[in-house]
Amino acid sequence: MTYCIAASINEGLILVSDSRTNAGIDNVSTHGKMHAFDSRPDRKIILLSAGNLATTQAVLEQMHRDKIKEAKVNINTVECLSEAADYLGHISVEKQKQHINTQGQSAFNPSATFILAGQIGGEPHGAYMIYAEGNSITTSANTPFLQIGESKYGKPILDRFLKLDTSIDEAARCCLVSMDSTIRSNASVGAPVEMLVYRKDSFAFQEYYCFDDGDDYMLQLRRSWETKLREAIAALPSLDKNAVKPMRVEL
Amino acid sequence: MTYCIAASINEGLILVSDSRTNAGIDNVSTHGKMHAFDSRPDRKIILLSAGNLATTQAVLEQMHRDKIKEAKVNINTVECLSEAADYLGHISVEKQKQHINTQGQSAFNPSATFILAGQIGGEPHGAYMIYAEGNSITTSANTPFLQIGESKYGKPILDRFLKLDTSIDEAARCCLVSMDSTIRSNASVGAPVEMLVYRKDSFAFQEYYCFDDGDDYMLQLRRSWETKLREAIAALPSLDKNAVKPMRVEL
Repeated sequence: MTYCIAASINEGLILVSDSRTNAGIDNVSTHGKMHAFDSRPDRKIILLSAGNLATTQAVLEQMHRDKIKEAKVNINTVECLSEAADYLGHISVEKQKQHINTQGQSAFNPSATFILAGQIGGEPHGAYMIYAEGNSITTSANTPFLQIGESKYGKPILDRFLKLDTSIDEAARCCLVSMDSTIRSNASVGAPVEMLVYRKDSFAFQEYYCFDDGDDYMLQLRRSWETKLREAIAALPSLDKNAVKPMRVEL
Repeated sequence: MTYCIAASINEGLILVSDSRTNAGIDNVSTHGKMHAFDSRPDRKIILLSAGNLATTQAVLEQMHRDKIKEAKVNINTVECLSEAADYLGHISVEKQKQHINTQGQSAFNPSATFILAGQIGGEPHGAYMIYAEGNSITTSANTPFLQIGESKYGKPILDRFLKLDTSIDEAARCCLVSMDSTIRSNASVGAPVEMLVYRKDSFAFQEYYCFDDGDDYMLQLRRSWETKLREAIAALPSLDKNAVKPMRVEL
């Protein structure tokens, strides 16, 4: 499996992804899921991918060929992020179709989901999630983040903390905690963890981090987080013993 | 959906369950999922249920009839929790079988999972999770808790905090945070939240709580938790800007 997060807040974007892929529990590999497109100075686009690795790689290859051949629509011609999301969704559906009727294991599933984020021209920065069906959604003021893959473990911390006006440095740490919680609780999500902090209007991939398993900073983050959680639980209000109720007995 | 937790720690048991059931998103009801059996002074047994409500109710009804009719094996004759888990698993499989071949919607799924916890005679307290297939697992020193239903949202806090030697009061608050996080992040899990704190060898259902939506204590707990999380994120170590790496660009 996979876990990727994109937070789109006032100050910019945070993108975080793990690197574990598996085709069955005994066939585990490491493949980065963060892909950077930097082909023109007026655009910075990042893709995060989850799902079938063959589909993901075929989509990236097609995007590459479209650019080289200067196809009518390619990553250099799209004028805004939603157009880029449509373009990606179209390729993704085409690539999935090629294999969906292939004879093989009944469990075969070529579907893939993507997050496309970045900034193009004078448009604001943003992030889109592209479903396997090719359609897409973006973030909103209520929910300024998107997740793909094993999203449930790391959702509560994002739900509780992440707002549009969260500072970009705190948002980055919050996303790393969300990733670390997922790695801790699910063996199919694993290091290296990639993170890109994109400050709006910078048009630069300057703050990219890659944390290996056992990275000092990630260990410090985890230790600090677990210490603070213990303090937080100790500080929670005690149960009011007067609120005890009679228990209904069934048998 | 449903979310239920059973923690089995040195000092005793914590059992927490939500009360939302749904047959489709437009057919939502409230049904408690915590069922107490108190038919003999030498045993206290609690059942938590997730999955098909008809199966759950049929299982409870059968257990009731077995007891009344003094069947060879019933909740009053089982000598330990693992025997009770086997008994329950057997009934559950029988009840599911009755409906699995019924003509109907293709999405029909009669499966149900249970947690059976408590204490019988001179045996130690404990908890078992009974799968839809009728087999069961119990807790261990490494993982002193079981979850059924929507378990992913609330797993990280249990993974990070809950140990065999955690005090029973802190374990109770930790389980409530796990439940509250799940309710916050998933609309299919909802109040009232039931909690039973069972102190080992007490053979009494004395500390039972039922928190309605908007309950004062749960609101305090949530506010306190969210404040502490913000403090925890603020206190996390800052990213080392010297750890920035060059980003590999694909296109």
